[in-house]
Amino acid sequence: MADAASTQARTGTAVIGDSEFDRDTAVTRRDPAVPGVYDIDLSAGWTIINAVNGGYLLAVLGRALADTLPHADPFTISAHYLTASAPGPAVIRTDVVRTGRTLSTGQASLFQFAEDGTEVERIRVLASYGDLDALPDDVRTSAKPPAIPPIEQCFGAADAPADGPRIPGSSAITDRLDVKLDPATLGWALGAPSGKGEMRAWFGLADGRDADPFSLLLTVDALPPTAFEMGLKGWVPTVELTVHVRSRPAPGPLRVSITTRNLAGGFLEEDAEIWDSQDRLVAQSRQLARARLS
Amino acid sequence: MADAASTQARTGTAVIGDSEFDRDTAVTRRDPAVPGVYDIDLSAGWTIINAVNGGYLLAVLGRALADTLPHADPFTISAHYLTASAPGPAVIRTDVVRTGRTLSTGQASLFQFAEDGTEVERIRVLASYGDLDALPDDVRTSAKPPAIPPIEQCFGAADAPADGPRIPGSSAITDRLDVKLDPATLGWALGAPSGKGEMRAWFGLADGRDADPFSLLLTVDALPPTAFEMGLKGWVPTVELTVHVRSRPAPGPLRVSITTRNLAGGFLEEDAEIWDSQDRLVAQSRQLARARLS
Repeated sequence: MADAASTQARTGTAVIGDSEFDRDTAVTRRDPAVPGVYDIDLSAGWTIINAVNGGYLLAVLGRALADTLPHADPFTISAHYLTASAPGPAVIRTDVVRTGRTLSTGQASLFQFAEDGTEVERIRVLASYGDLDALPDDVRTSAKPPAIPPIEQCFGAADAPADGPRIPGSSAITDRLDVKLDPATLGWALGAPSGKGEMRAWFGLADGRDADPFSLLLTVDALPPTAFEMGLKGWVPTVELTVHVRSRPAPGPLRVSITTRNLAGGFLEEDAEIWDSQDRLVAQSRQLARARLS
Repeated sequence: MADAASTQARTGTAVIGDSEFDRDTAVTRRDPAVPGVYDIDLSAGWTIINAVNGGYLLAVLGRALADTLPHADPFTISAHYLTASAPGPAVIRTDVVRTGRTLSTGQASLFQFAEDGTEVERIRVLASYGDLDALPDDVRTSAKPPAIPPIEQCFGAADAPADGPRIPGSSAITDRLDVKLDPATLGWALGAPSGKGEMRAWFGLADGRDADPFSLLLTVDALPPTAFEMGLKGWVPTVELTVHVRSRPAPGPLRVSITTRNLAGGFLEEDAEIWDSQDRLVAQSRQLARARLS
């Protein structure tokens, strides 16, 4: 199994349903016959600066809700991040809020365990699910894909100068992702942040798995923070994140564009757009994050 | 009391704490000594096309959470709208999710009553609250206020031509609001929608009450839908709405700018920005709504 996974990763041949992302976001019903309680060992493979990535956590919760609800695809999902998660055991508890013909709504909480074994809530989520394949084809999107150079002219972690700024701590997630940053938004990595709240990149999963609605939940939170380009130091923890999944993404690389326009009062928003290879705006998100000003 | 309210309305002298909005969003603890269960009679005064306005409902839930949580101001609040509310009795049940030093998180549900008296959930909300007055003053907002003509060159409902399109059904909310639309976004009212997903207006409450964090929750959902300018007929029901309140608004009129860029698959998003009289971006919201294409 491990060898097959290594081969997948090395050759970029993972597929939806059989990939690092699928294995690391899989949740297990505690009682196989009953939805509503799920166990998972949160992977250490999706950490950034020692913190478990918020988009990875959202995808995990999204999986649990997909098992609980009669509809399979997240349409709109909001998460409040309460306490920091760590790699290791977690339990997810879900509730059905309402089931409808085209939309169902559910709630989910992820807990980890204090030293005495009591459950400590990490994240609470409200989400409405539907069937993306049942949506009509009518597309009148006026938004345009981001202006980002071709992927060959964009840069990933492996291209960073050996003597450049290093992100401290464990950033295992960078091995799971194939992120190629727009040169216009990587000044921070060279000690020269642009001052603008922008981050753009081509995005894929390192083992070659195509995108799907659950990986989109990861993707909206998987780029470096716009705060880096704005010259802010330190981390920018997410308080709340809402994602709209608007279409099943086509195979192939995604383009992600993140914008911050309102850094004020110790908080900032990050608006992310994800565009697929067919120039479809497949997901939009906004998060509110704390921004430490010095 | 009624006479005092009429006088307020006629002379525009209502204040925060004593106004139509305050009276109609006030919730009452069912047990005065215990937070967590609140009664209200939802007002018929905030309906649009016979439906109780979603922003008014969000403000009602916001009030209940403010009573439940140790922090007073909504910072980020997400609502999933499950079934249509009607004027009349409702109960709100809240739970504390987590209390912290600077932020607390809560959950709230609003129920109404079926003929047999059982509770039917209308809306469920997750929200994090804080203290807006404790935020540092550092403002590095790069966004700019909307380009909207001076208020004297904008138009309210009273200015509409007598033979123009009429919004059918009860729209009592228009009597509660002082909305002056940008001429560039009122083509729909003259039978000539622009085709662009934009709506902009100056906004105030008709009785003169200044804005506060709770009225901002109303305001993000109180303009005509962008769908009207896009030439869509019929209503555009909100599925989910997330609001970030970023600053206590200054006294005086607000400017509201709403944009839709992704009308596709029978859904659209409405992004709203609210700017106060000090050119501060006091609130940002995004809602996902169903868009009936014909």
